[in-house]
Amino acid sequence: MADFAPGEFLARLARAQAGMAVAGLDHLLLTTEAEFRYFSGFRTQFWQSPARPWFLLVPKTGDPVAIIPAIGADLMAKTWISDIRTWNSPDPADEGVSLLQDALAGASRIGLPMGAESSLRMPFADFERLRRVLNAEICDATPLIRDLRMVKSDAEIAVLREICAIGSAAFDRAASLFHEGQPLNEAFRAFKIALLQAGADDVPYLVGAAGRGGYGDVISPPDATPLRTGDVLMLDTGATRKGYFCDFDRNFAIGRADAAAAACHRALWAATEAGLAAARPGAHCAELYRAMAEQLPDAGSSVGRFGHGLGIQLTEWPSHSARDDTVLRPGMVITLEPSMAIAPGKMMVHEEDILITDGMPELLTTRAAAELPVI
Amino acid sequence: MADFAPGEFLARLARAQAGMAVAGLDHLLLTTEAEFRYFSGFRTQFWQSPARPWFLLVPKTGDPVAIIPAIGADLMAKTWISDIRTWNSPDPADEGVSLLQDALAGASRIGLPMGAESSLRMPFADFERLRRVLNAEICDATPLIRDLRMVKSDAEIAVLREICAIGSAAFDRAASLFHEGQPLNEAFRAFKIALLQAGADDVPYLVGAAGRGGYGDVISPPDATPLRTGDVLMLDTGATRKGYFCDFDRNFAIGRADAAAAACHRALWAATEAGLAAARPGAHCAELYRAMAEQLPDAGSSVGRFGHGLGIQLTEWPSHSARDDTVLRPGMVITLEPSMAIAPGKMMVHEEDILITDGMPELLTTRAAAELPVI
Repeated sequence: MADFAPGEFLARLARAQAGMAVAGLDHLLLTTEAEFRYFSGFRTQFWQSPARPWFLLVPKTGDPVAIIPAIGADLMAKTWISDIRTWNSPDPADEGVSLLQDALAGASRIGLPMGAESSLRMPFADFERLRRVLNAEICDATPLIRDLRMVKSDAEIAVLREICAIGSAAFDRAASLFHEGQPLNEAFRAFKIALLQAGADDVPYLVGAAGRGGYGDVISPPDATPLRTGDVLMLDTGATRKGYFCDFDRNFAIGRADAAAAACHRALWAATEAGLAAARPGAHCAELYRAMAEQLPDAGSSVGRFGHGLGIQLTEWPSHSARDDTVLRPGMVITLEPSMAIAPGKMMVHEEDILITDGMPELLTTRAAAELPVI
Repeated sequence: MADFAPGEFLARLARAQAGMAVAGLDHLLLTTEAEFRYFSGFRTQFWQSPARPWFLLVPKTGDPVAIIPAIGADLMAKTWISDIRTWNSPDPADEGVSLLQDALAGASRIGLPMGAESSLRMPFADFERLRRVLNAEICDATPLIRDLRMVKSDAEIAVLREICAIGSAAFDRAASLFHEGQPLNEAFRAFKIALLQAGADDVPYLVGAAGRGGYGDVISPPDATPLRTGDVLMLDTGATRKGYFCDFDRNFAIGRADAAAAACHRALWAATEAGLAAARPGAHCAELYRAMAEQLPDAGSSVGRFGHGLGIQLTEWPSHSARDDTVLRPGMVITLEPSMAIAPGKMMVHEEDILITDGMPELLTTRAAAELPVI
C-alpha cells in the first residue's frame, strides 16, 4: 500500500514535530481516519465499521506509534509505520486503553484535535478513563493539524489533479447519461457508474437535485421522480482516487433552459470568475467570499460559505465565509462554491476545484460553461 | 424522503422513551449519523463533510428536536421531525452550542452514547464547554441505544432483505465479471458497477484480496496485481439500500482450486452451517462463536470475532466472540463470519447475513456453495 513514498510521510512528520515543539506537546493522540491516514498512509474502508477504535500517536521525537486492533496489523505493516502495537478487539474490558496508557505514561502535554471540524472517534467513557489515569494536560491540536493539512504537497496535488480530471471526464458524458423521463435515482446510478468507469476508486459522495427552474436543497439523496423538460439537474460529486476527493458540481437544463435559471447560472459563473481572480496567496478567505458575493443579488444564499478546503476529506478547512480569516497560501486546494436563491424554495449552486499557486490559481476541474448547458 | 412511515419512528421513539424512564434520563444527546437517522429518518451523504456538527435531542416526553446547520433545514423538513432549530454554520464563535444549551437547560440527567462502538461527533472543546454550563449528569446511553437498534422492525428487515438480495444477485454474475489476468482493482471496479446495476444505492464498503491459495488480510484496498490461475479471490461487500447495509463475502478460485484452499472453504462453510444451527433465540453470542469455532482447526483465526450485527451500519452490536454474552432475540439481523488461518500470512474468511426468528434463522443472502467455486 504505497499511495505515497516514505519521504512524503517523513516530511509530514517533520512539519508536525516542528509545530509540536512550538506548542510544547509531547504527543499527538489521533483517533480519526483522516489524521490516521495523513501520518501513516493507512488506507482502508474498514473505518465504516464502528466496532473498533484505532489510535495513532505522534511523539515529539521519533516515529509514530500505531495502537490498533489486531485485524489491522497486516495492513499497517505495509505502511512505513514500524511500531505497531495491537490488541484482540473487540474487547469490552479493555479497548486499547491500557496500551494507550503505557505509551503515554510520563507525557505532560498531549495534543488532541478538539476544535473546528474535529471528532473523537473512540468511546467517550474510555477517553475519560484514560484522562483520569494520565497526569497530563489535554491541549487542542486542531490549529496544528489544520495548518499541516491545509497546504498540500506536490504528491497530494498530483492525486487531486487526477481525481478532478476523472470527475470532469465523467461530467463530459452528461448528454449521453441523463435524459428527460429518467428517474432521478437512475441518473445518480448512471453517474456513479460513469465515475467508476472514468477511473474513480470510489464515489462516497453524490448528492444533487432536479427541479423546474431550480431546486430546493443540495444534500438530498435522490428519489424516483422522472426528469422533466425545463428541469435543472444538479449533481455534486465527491469521488475519490487513492483516498483523495474531488468535490464539484455541474448544472444541466433538461430539454430547454428556464430563463431565470439560465440567468442564475450566469451569475454563479461570474461569481466563480471573481473567485478565481481573488484566489491569490495572501488573500483572506473572507475576501474570497466577498469577491464572489458581490457578483450575486442579495449576496447569494444563506448557506454560510462559498467553498472550502479539499483533500483527504470531502470538505476540509478553511471555509470561504465572512467569518474565516484564514490566509490563502500556495499549495492549498480549495473549492469555489457560490450559491444563490432564485425564489422561495428554489436555488442553484455551482462549484469548481482549484489550486492556489504563487500567481493565478490552477483550475483542477474542467471549467464549467458560462451558459447553462441544455441536454 | 420517506424511507419509512411515521409510525416506524413513533415506535422507535416510544421504545426509547420507555428505556429513558427506566434509566431516569431527561434527554438523549445524539451526534452521530446512525443515531440521527434511526430516530429522525434524516438520510444524506453530507455526513462526509466534517465541517458541521449535527445534534438530535430525544426528550423524555414529546418529539425529538433537531438542532442542525441551516443547510440541512429543507431536508430535515421532509422527515417527520417538526421541531427544527438551525444556525448559520460554520460559525467558529458558536457551532450550535448556545442552541443546545437552551434546549437542555434544566435537564439533570443527559444520556450520551459513550460505550462500545460509540463516537462523539462534535468538537470535544464544544462538548466540554456545554458540560460546564449545564448542571447535568452525563450518563452512558449506549446500553439503551444498543438494545433498541439491535432488534430490527419488520420495515427494517424488509430493506435488509432487499440489499442482501441485491448483493447476492451481483455475486451471481461473478463468472462473467472476474477473470485470470484482470488487475485486482479492475475486479473491484467491475463488482461495484455490478452492485449498482443490481439495484444498490451505494457501495460504501468493498474490501477483499486475492492470493495463491489464500490471502493475507481482509481489509485492504486493491492494487493492480493481476489475478493468476490458482488465486483465491475474496470480495467482501457492504452495499446499501435506503441507507441499510448488507455485509457478506464470497470466495472464488481463479482457474483451479488449490487443495488447501478448497479444504479451508469446506471448513468455513461447515462452520457457517453450525452457526446457522446455533443461531436461535436465547442463545448467547459467545455460544454462537463457539459453535463455529468447534468446526475449525485451532478454533479458526485470531481476529477476535466470527460475525456481528448489521443494519444502518456495516457492523453493529453484538459481536460473536467468546467475550460477548448478548442473548439473541427474534428480529436481530447478524452476520456469520468465521475465518481461518491456512499458513503464516494466508487465511480465508466466509460470511453470510441472517435474521434471527422464533425458530430457524432466515438466510438473507443466497447461501454460498459448500465447494469453493472455480471461475
